[in-house]
Amino acid sequence: MRKRKSLAEYEKGILEGDRVILSQAITLVESNLESDQLLASHLVQQVMSQTGNSIRIGITGVPGVGKSTFIEAFGEMLLAEGKKVAVLAIDPTSQKTKGSILGDKTRMEKLSGDSRAFIRPSPSGVTLGGVSSKTREAMLLCEAAGFDVILIETVGVGQSETAVKGMVDFFLLLMLAGAGDELQGIKKGIMEMADALFINKAEEENMTAAKRAKQHYQNALHLFPLGENGWSPQVLLGSAMQKKGMKACWDLIEDYCQLQKRNGHFDKNRAGQRVKWLEESVLDLLGRAFFSQKEIRSEFEIGKEKVKSGIAHPLVLANDLLEKFLKK
Amino acid sequence: MRKRKSLAEYEKGILEGDRVILSQAITLVESNLESDQLLASHLVQQVMSQTGNSIRIGITGVPGVGKSTFIEAFGEMLLAEGKKVAVLAIDPTSQKTKGSILGDKTRMEKLSGDSRAFIRPSPSGVTLGGVSSKTREAMLLCEAAGFDVILIETVGVGQSETAVKGMVDFFLLLMLAGAGDELQGIKKGIMEMADALFINKAEEENMTAAKRAKQHYQNALHLFPLGENGWSPQVLLGSAMQKKGMKACWDLIEDYCQLQKRNGHFDKNRAGQRVKWLEESVLDLLGRAFFSQKEIRSEFEIGKEKVKSGIAHPLVLANDLLEKFLKK
Repeated sequence: MRKRKSLAEYEKGILEGDRVILSQAITLVESNLESDQLLASHLVQQVMSQTGNSIRIGITGVPGVGKSTFIEAFGEMLLAEGKKVAVLAIDPTSQKTKGSILGDKTRMEKLSGDSRAFIRPSPSGVTLGGVSSKTREAMLLCEAAGFDVILIETVGVGQSETAVKGMVDFFLLLMLAGAGDELQGIKKGIMEMADALFINKAEEENMTAAKRAKQHYQNALHLFPLGENGWSPQVLLGSAMQKKGMKACWDLIEDYCQLQKRNGHFDKNRAGQRVKWLEESVLDLLGRAFFSQKEIRSEFEIGKEKVKSGIAHPLVLANDLLEKFLKK
Repeated sequence: MRKRKSLAEYEKGILEGDRVILSQAITLVESNLESDQLLASHLVQQVMSQTGNSIRIGITGVPGVGKSTFIEAFGEMLLAEGKKVAVLAIDPTSQKTKGSILGDKTRMEKLSGDSRAFIRPSPSGVTLGGVSSKTREAMLLCEAAGFDVILIETVGVGQSETAVKGMVDFFLLLMLAGAGDELQGIKKGIMEMADALFINKAEEENMTAAKRAKQHYQNALHLFPLGENGWSPQVLLGSAMQKKGMKACWDLIEDYCQLQKRNGHFDKNRAGQRVKWLEESVLDLLGRAFFSQKEIRSEFEIGKEKVKSGIAHPLVLANDLLEKFLKK
C-alpha cells in the first residue's frame, strides 16, 4: 500500500519544484481511489494561486508524422532557451494500449534525461471527460512546480482534440507534405481548430513538395472565418529530425501569446476554459451518479437499442429514467 | 384555455396529413406546460413507425446571403418536383427577437401559400438543447404527416449549427462571392461541417468573381480530411433570386443520399443521431433537475465567478454541489 504524504508535504514539495513529489502528486490525481482524488483536488486548490504562469501548447498530428521526434526536438530547443518544459498527454485509449504515446519514454531519451524537463504518460480512465480532467489537474500542478511551457500531446482518437483545445493557449497540428492527401487520417474539424500547421519532414529532397503544400494550405486557411481573437492560422515548414524550424515555431507561438495578451483574449480564453471545465465536471458527476444505478443503467442500455433502431422516442425514455432516478 | 385533442385525434390527423392538426400538434411540442410536453412526447412515440421517410436538409449561411430567398426558391423547385416540403428553424435567440427567421412568413409568400408546403418558425426555449429537441419532434411529426423534404434553417448563433448538423442528413452552407472574406461572419468550424457550399447571387455581372470563389473553395475543401462517409464536399453556384442552381443543388443532395444509402452510412448516421439525442436528453434533464434547486443554483453561480477568475478549483466545487444535490 503506497504511503501517502500529507497535503502540506505535497504542497511544499510542489512549490519547491521537487520533481519526485510532483510525480507522486500526479499519481494521486490519476488514482481511481476516491480518497486519493479528494486529496488531489484539495492539493490543486491549495496551489491554485501559483498556477497559470506558463504557455500551454496542444500538439496533434496525422499518424506517422513524427510526433515524438517533434516533441523531443521542440523540447530541447525550449530547454536551450532556458525554459522548464513539462510534456503531458491525453490518450483515451490508454487503458487498451497501455499508454501508447508517452509510456514509451525511450523515444524521447534526451528530454527525459534532462532535469528541467518532466514527461508523463496519459492518465487512463473510463470517460474522456475523466481523463482530460486529470490531465488538467496534472498541468496545474506542473505550473505550480515552476514549469514554463506545458506541451500536451494527443493521439487524434475520438474527441480528444476537442478536449486538448479546451485546455491550451495554442493548438498545433503536425502534418506531412504529401500529394494532396496530407490530412487524411485525422478527424474532420481539427484543421479549423489549429492555430498553426507545421509541415514536418520538409527536407532537401522534398522541399519543393513541402513548399507547395505550405502554399496550398495557407491559401485554404485564408478562406476560413477567423476566430473571435482575430488570429489567422499560419503554416510552417520544418524537420524535427534535422532540428529545423523549432525556433521559428516557438517564435510564432510567443508572438501569438503576446498579441492575445495585449488584446485581452489570452485571459478571456482561459477564463472561458475554466468555466467550461466546471460545467463539464458537474455534468460528468451527474452522469456518473445516474449511471451508477444498476437498474437505471440496464434500462438505459435496453432502451438505447430501441432508440438506435428508430422504434423508441428518446424523450419518453429519458423522462422515464429521470423520474426513477430522482425518486431514489 | 386552448382545447386539447385526445392523443388518438392528433395521431389520426397527422397520419392523414391534416395540416391544421399537424400545426396544433407542433404547438403542443413547443409548449412549456409539462402536460402538453408529455402528450406531445407520447404522440411522437405513437407515430414513430411512420417517421424517417424524408430527406432532412440543414441550411445556414452568412448574414445577408439571402437565406429566405433561397428557401423560397428551393422550396418551389421541390414542389414542382412533386415533393411535399416542410420548413422548420432553430433560432435559440427567438425569445429575444420574436422568431427572427420564419416568424416573418411574408418573406416566403409563394411557399407559405402552397398547401403542399408547411412553414413553422423556430420554437423558443431556455436552452439550445431544449429548442433543438422541440425542432426534432416537430420534424418527426412532419414526416409522419407525409412531408418528403424537411428543410431546417438556422441563424448561425452559438452552437445552433452543431445542433442542426446533429439532426439532418445533409448540411448546406450558403455564401456569397466576395473578395476572399466570403466566410467572415460565420463561426469557425462550420465550413468543415458542410456537405456542400452554395455560392448565391452568382449573376452575370459578378460571374467571374463567383467562379473564382468556387475554384478557391473547391481547392480548399479538397485539402480537408474526408469524413467517415467518404464524401468530398462540393461547391455550387447559383442565384436564388433568378431561380438558378436550385435543381442542380437538389440533384447533388439526391446523389449524396443515394450514395450514403448504398454504403450504409445514411442509416448509420441517423442511428448515431438518435443515440446522441437520447444521451443529450438525459444530461439535459439531469442538469435541469440539478439547477432547479435554488440553493445549488446560487452556490453554483457564486462558485462559477471564483472559477472564472482562477481562484477556485472546478472539481472541488463540482464535488461539493453534487454531494448536496444527491442528499436531497
